[in-house]
Amino acid sequence: MAYFDAASGLPLHPVARQALVASLDEGWADPARLYREGRRARMLLDAAREAAAEAVGCRADEVVFTPSGTAAVHSGIAGALAGRRRVGDHLVVSAVEHSSVLHAGEVHRAGGGSVTEVPVDRQGAVAPSGYAGALRPDTALACLQSANHEVGTVQPVAEVAEVCRAAGVPLLVDAAQSLGWGPVPGDWSLLTAGAHKWGGPAGVGLLVVRKGVRFAPQGPVDERESGRAPGFENIPAIVAAVAALRAVRAEAAEEAARLRELTDRIRERVPRLVPDVEVVGDPERRLPGIVTFSCLYVDGETVLHELDRAGFSVSSGSSCTSSTLMPSHVLKAMGVLSEGNVRVSLPPGTADEDVERFLSVLPGVVGEVREKLGAPAPAAAAVQEDVLVVDALGRRCPVPVIELAKVIDRVPVGGLVRVLADDEAARLDIPAWCEMRGQEYVGEEPAEQGTAYLVRRVG
Amino acid sequence: MAYFDAASGLPLHPVARQALVASLDEGWADPARLYREGRRARMLLDAAREAAAEAVGCRADEVVFTPSGTAAVHSGIAGALAGRRRVGDHLVVSAVEHSSVLHAGEVHRAGGGSVTEVPVDRQGAVAPSGYAGALRPDTALACLQSANHEVGTVQPVAEVAEVCRAAGVPLLVDAAQSLGWGPVPGDWSLLTAGAHKWGGPAGVGLLVVRKGVRFAPQGPVDERESGRAPGFENIPAIVAAVAALRAVRAEAAEEAARLRELTDRIRERVPRLVPDVEVVGDPERRLPGIVTFSCLYVDGETVLHELDRAGFSVSSGSSCTSSTLMPSHVLKAMGVLSEGNVRVSLPPGTADEDVERFLSVLPGVVGEVREKLGAPAPAAAAVQEDVLVVDALGRRCPVPVIELAKVIDRVPVGGLVRVLADDEAARLDIPAWCEMRGQEYVGEEPAEQGTAYLVRRVG
Repeated sequence: MAYFDAASGLPLHPVARQALVASLDEGWADPARLYREGRRARMLLDAAREAAAEAVGCRADEVVFTPSGTAAVHSGIAGALAGRRRVGDHLVVSAVEHSSVLHAGEVHRAGGGSVTEVPVDRQGAVAPSGYAGALRPDTALACLQSANHEVGTVQPVAEVAEVCRAAGVPLLVDAAQSLGWGPVPGDWSLLTAGAHKWGGPAGVGLLVVRKGVRFAPQGPVDERESGRAPGFENIPAIVAAVAALRAVRAEAAEEAARLRELTDRIRERVPRLVPDVEVVGDPERRLPGIVTFSCLYVDGETVLHELDRAGFSVSSGSSCTSSTLMPSHVLKAMGVLSEGNVRVSLPPGTADEDVERFLSVLPGVVGEVREKLGAPAPAAAAVQEDVLVVDALGRRCPVPVIELAKVIDRVPVGGLVRVLADDEAARLDIPAWCEMRGQEYVGEEPAEQGTAYLVRRVG
Repeated sequence: MAYFDAASGLPLHPVARQALVASLDEGWADPARLYREGRRARMLLDAAREAAAEAVGCRADEVVFTPSGTAAVHSGIAGALAGRRRVGDHLVVSAVEHSSVLHAGEVHRAGGGSVTEVPVDRQGAVAPSGYAGALRPDTALACLQSANHEVGTVQPVAEVAEVCRAAGVPLLVDAAQSLGWGPVPGDWSLLTAGAHKWGGPAGVGLLVVRKGVRFAPQGPVDERESGRAPGFENIPAIVAAVAALRAVRAEAAEEAARLRELTDRIRERVPRLVPDVEVVGDPERRLPGIVTFSCLYVDGETVLHELDRAGFSVSSGSSCTSSTLMPSHVLKAMGVLSEGNVRVSLPPGTADEDVERFLSVLPGVVGEVREKLGAPAPAAAAVQEDVLVVDALGRRCPVPVIELAKVIDRVPVGGLVRVLADDEAARLDIPAWCEMRGQEYVGEEPAEQGTAYLVRRVG
């Protein structure tokens, strides 16, 4: 059994487990009370706050413990926007933020605010100039993740923070994926993270608001956590979360080097072992443990299921696994293939053998899924004037691309294939297939049913 | 050492501790994932939801786990109000709700909604007719606690639910103080609670929304917990919380009888042991473990401190301990003395000897505090026409009442004492003193500085 989905969450670090169990006896009482049980709880909370601040690189009174990373993001964005309401109601985010950030943006938009999404390159990275161009006199807040949760690409946070600082706009950094590896560089204003990503327990998030940042907490008043996180403090979990952060930080340099070697191996070997694969994300500026690739002619859910049967727990940003049937917004923003997407995120301590076994199992799994999916009867294809028409209406990803690939050789070089499809993923995957295959993607046009995607055979 | 502040929170129940530790290994993964670790986590979560539903007396799909009782109240009120926005924006609450309910009401009012507070009687109970009178055609939601957190009075929830049901208004019941003792009776629509009040860990709240209740979750979209509680589920804590609930319920009947006998003892003996004490809250319809009394001529903070030194951890709703220097809104709404307020809330398993020791220590503690406070130089008193004026400007509670008590015998029967005070607590405590002492409270009027309170000597 190998758990390769560290980016979703880690099992409790042994040090955190010890800290949690130990502080159940000392940290259960209300830290706002003046009696001895309350004072003991307060001491644990204060010590945890000091240690968290040290790990983040900030002052203890800038740290607020929230019930989750998601809660930290929601409260942080709402509070920072409200704090600068007089400046304006413009929010800047990258196109590849975690859904918690994008959903907070949707609420802001629904409330009358405006949101600009800064695009990313094909590696998933923003450019500092993208933020410089997006900032306006009425920008209240900018948000940028420290590293991407789906493809591992590290963002130029320090440079973007500089751009924001020059414009007088606070920058909120979602450090969920990177805080366990080290402090976030640069002159950011707010920071969020969730402990279960670094081996702490669920139920603990971090919201850091630098002194001098205007912040107006939203929602009902509550005296806890400087009025920034309502509800009784979960002190044993907070103590455990901070203990885990210190423990993973102590192991970070060594573990990063080890995991980077393993993910390098996957990056290099998967394309050699499995045909028609695109490894996505920045090959250099990336998190040590994440590697993501997309496999043509495969649906992500089936691959995940087959890998689970083979003993590997991985995740997917593929359109075919999402409950909303939309391709991952991250892969879409990068303009890369979303079909048959697999994210491998290795937890600290991953054994060399497990990665080798994964590499030995993967080609067979992908091959079998392709064989199954290749089996359906070819879609109706008819030459209409100079154009070969493929009717994939009502067929789900990855069928439209499979059908396209089957017929491309049946038109002459320079000829056109017109793929009729109504699955939203086709919009992303047909152009991505063209780029991978060196064919020309001509464009799309509305059809009587669904959309027609035009592809010209180049070679 | 005796911890007598169960109403603030309990140490982790041994059964919960065991469940927590056991589920750390099985319940850390993302329950939304399809691989085996995710499926195991989902199974634990589903089983916990079933068990919670059974304890509440509802369907499993009506139960949402939130990060705290406070979060449950905030989300529950916001979602229920939004769900019935078309009906109107009127909210009804009792005057003695927990601050989390009242603060949610403040946010609603700040957003343009209207709020009606239903008054309580001198025992702290609402009347169903009070709710009947407060409901309007534009009432979106009514809220009522199952029992009061400061004085233990049990509210007529079933009767109020009937009144609400007849008017077509959903009733949200804050069951924080009572859920460990048993299900909430009656045909309520929403229910909230927090696990650390019944011996579960911090970090877990319950929000129950009955099928058919219109509910529109507020804040950014999140797929977890039916979209009603954002953030990664804290499964080990949820499992522990539900285990604790089942455990305390199994012991509830026996433990309630035992604790009721102990609090009866305190209710009866404190007034005999300590002069000038008012025991507050309903003597019959009350929670088993809570007893609250107020001591004239004493400040709550000093009593708490002295009791802590004597080994007793208790709480106070006295004006003198609150950071805002306002008397407890509960005692104020009841119209009882807030001065020198002490809340004793016994945890399950409280030993008889500890209560006896408390009763033996209390008279000395109160006596000493009174002696210290009686020592300050008498305030300037001068007969001005027929009125004796006491200048207590700048003096904090309980000094104005102490000075009033010192001079009342210096005016003839029928004569007036005019107490000048600028401490907000005097507004509550001078009338309460008059009621306790059988003197006539004439009323208040603005003075050159602060407020003048007029008291006529009756006997």
